[in-house]
Amino acid sequence: MNVYEESLKLHKEHRGKLEIHTKVACKTKEDLSLAYTPGVAEPCREIHKDEENSFIYTNRGNTVAVITDGSAVLGLGNIGAAAGLPVMEGKCLLFKRFANIDAFPICLKTQDPKEIINICKNLEPGLGGINLEDISAPRCVEIEETLKREMNIPVFHDDQHGTAIVVLAALINASRLMKKKPEDYKIVISGTGAAGSSIIKTLYNYGFKNILAFDVDGCLNKDDSENYNSLKKDLLNYVNLNNEKYAGLKEGVKGRDVFIGVSAPNLLDVEAVKNMSEESIIFAMANPVPEISYEDAKKAGAYIIGTGRSDYPNQINNILAFPGIFRGALDAKATKITDKEKIRASEAIAYLIKDEELSTDYIIPSPFDERVPVAVAEAVKKSCIESGNVR
Amino acid sequence: MNVYEESLKLHKEHRGKLEIHTKVACKTKEDLSLAYTPGVAEPCREIHKDEENSFIYTNRGNTVAVITDGSAVLGLGNIGAAAGLPVMEGKCLLFKRFANIDAFPICLKTQDPKEIINICKNLEPGLGGINLEDISAPRCVEIEETLKREMNIPVFHDDQHGTAIVVLAALINASRLMKKKPEDYKIVISGTGAAGSSIIKTLYNYGFKNILAFDVDGCLNKDDSENYNSLKKDLLNYVNLNNEKYAGLKEGVKGRDVFIGVSAPNLLDVEAVKNMSEESIIFAMANPVPEISYEDAKKAGAYIIGTGRSDYPNQINNILAFPGIFRGALDAKATKITDKEKIRASEAIAYLIKDEELSTDYIIPSPFDERVPVAVAEAVKKSCIESGNVR
Repeated sequence: MNVYEESLKLHKEHRGKLEIHTKVACKTKEDLSLAYTPGVAEPCREIHKDEENSFIYTNRGNTVAVITDGSAVLGLGNIGAAAGLPVMEGKCLLFKRFANIDAFPICLKTQDPKEIINICKNLEPGLGGINLEDISAPRCVEIEETLKREMNIPVFHDDQHGTAIVVLAALINASRLMKKKPEDYKIVISGTGAAGSSIIKTLYNYGFKNILAFDVDGCLNKDDSENYNSLKKDLLNYVNLNNEKYAGLKEGVKGRDVFIGVSAPNLLDVEAVKNMSEESIIFAMANPVPEISYEDAKKAGAYIIGTGRSDYPNQINNILAFPGIFRGALDAKATKITDKEKIRASEAIAYLIKDEELSTDYIIPSPFDERVPVAVAEAVKKSCIESGNVR
Repeated sequence: MNVYEESLKLHKEHRGKLEIHTKVACKTKEDLSLAYTPGVAEPCREIHKDEENSFIYTNRGNTVAVITDGSAVLGLGNIGAAAGLPVMEGKCLLFKRFANIDAFPICLKTQDPKEIINICKNLEPGLGGINLEDISAPRCVEIEETLKREMNIPVFHDDQHGTAIVVLAALINASRLMKKKPEDYKIVISGTGAAGSSIIKTLYNYGFKNILAFDVDGCLNKDDSENYNSLKKDLLNYVNLNNEKYAGLKEGVKGRDVFIGVSAPNLLDVEAVKNMSEESIIFAMANPVPEISYEDAKKAGAYIIGTGRSDYPNQINNILAFPGIFRGALDAKATKITDKEKIRASEAIAYLIKDEELSTDYIIPSPFDERVPVAVAEAVKKSCIESGNVR
């Protein structure tokens, strides 16, 4: 059996991956009178007096909804909300496993951003946070931005920021290893969707100012921007500030230091990577088939290679970020997660590896490194409290 | 400490009553590749081919959302969605405890019926069923009716039907004990809200045709109906068919056989019950203080007395109904729960007590009788399948 057949079998055997457990006894009349009527009236009254008490007397403060509309599930595309459920359950499983957060899936029938926004806002009274998942770009940006502005609990679209945070962590460590500064790197990013656009903004804000971005329309540049969607138009504030033109991605990477791929299979080849600068960095993360295989990147002489896969060194996996980020935000009773927390998370991930431990094959901790969510949570909690974005 | 202080302490100690557990391992890279990417793509694809597969490869088929807008929480009134959360968590706990159903709370900020309806409909792809909870009348009727019509999973408003099902079970057994027929009983119901109106319709549909209904406006009758809301106007098809008039409840119960109270404390007294027929039945369920105390009803010579409380015989508790009803509906992969299933549930509860076991102090099983949810589930499952209301 291959991994797909085996996964199908696992899902069928267990009927999914989540279940609800109860934290209090319910065996006797007395149990019932405390967990339910008449006793339960008292915590209700306390929360009615002050909604903040819901974080004391219920599980709200440890509860995250993983919300999708099924419009961009994994690499599978717009397969609909019900078909996204196995991924959402998986995400909830990771929340529990890596950060002891109680997350449950919400799969929305509607794909109308206005309706999605309205529904999320109305779910607030029972939630500690919202993880948006697998919502297609550029809609996801509008949805997340609006919710961040209008809600009083953290909202985080992992497809945008999760990968960006881990890419930044990897690049921080590449800089440490190579004793370079962010401004020393000439970067090419392939993909301007949810992940690509957040990577661009995150790197730029951290100090990586020399970035070119490619997608199906070629190299993003001002002269072609008429038909760009709002998200891509906005990216022109962060990329290609000299308004350069290139025939294609392979030409664009020439002489550049870093390639970051969150796009499609096999867009690069050995020749193209050979044409990059001496000590090139390749993060090829298209899933499951990357922009260039690890083997080919190696053959081309790339200095540092990262992939999205667990069977090669330097796995750039958003599992490193989102569990700790939400753990920290929930522990801080945060009302929002800002760009500052994202950078603190990247640094926390990066600096778990000591100078003397860094190597081209170890610029990023393993997803199973138990220190990661703890360190990320601490950094994010501290940052939220410092910013005052807490209840 | 009284029950309220103790309950508050319990809720604080555990931070609520629910948590999420995972049903599959997530310790190794291999685990991750099956529960999450890349393996998880396969169940997604299977569900994309046919949404029904979501009942095979996810927990959807065992998942119920307990949804409130906080407009009528317990006897506490419109205390808002967040303040309703302890009750919703309690309800979910009962679902797990009595029927092994994985239920989670949804507390909605909006109290606009149209928005509530729209949100519920959009939650469908991830759910096996919806339990509406603590939504005020008459709004709850419109909301439930619309959702039942427009959704393809069972929707059940427990405040309406839960008590009604158990009251019918109790009256079925009273008839068995007293060797009477439904049409022999002259009934008075106090309360025309969610529970009262469903009790009226349920009893009428079963054959109890002689019913008077009282509420704050007095005895429901056609001549006063101008200012009734739509729900109360509709009730005139079921109650007071001779259009009788009474000065008040105490006068209304004179010479009648059954009093059913889902209204307010202390509306009846010993004198009034004495004026009822020889072998009177009193179900006084206002919570926590009933329409007449057990002791006073006893003193007045009532033949059968039921209350909502666990410290007296014949506890009329909706715990007897909803866990088994949803268990049966989920097991049948039902698309709806109809009036037929409700009656089957009442009969299943009633006939767990054998003829020779019936007594004035034992017309209804205990909420902790483990046979109840099993029997109800079997009856409901069978009924759903017979009706063809299944996937």
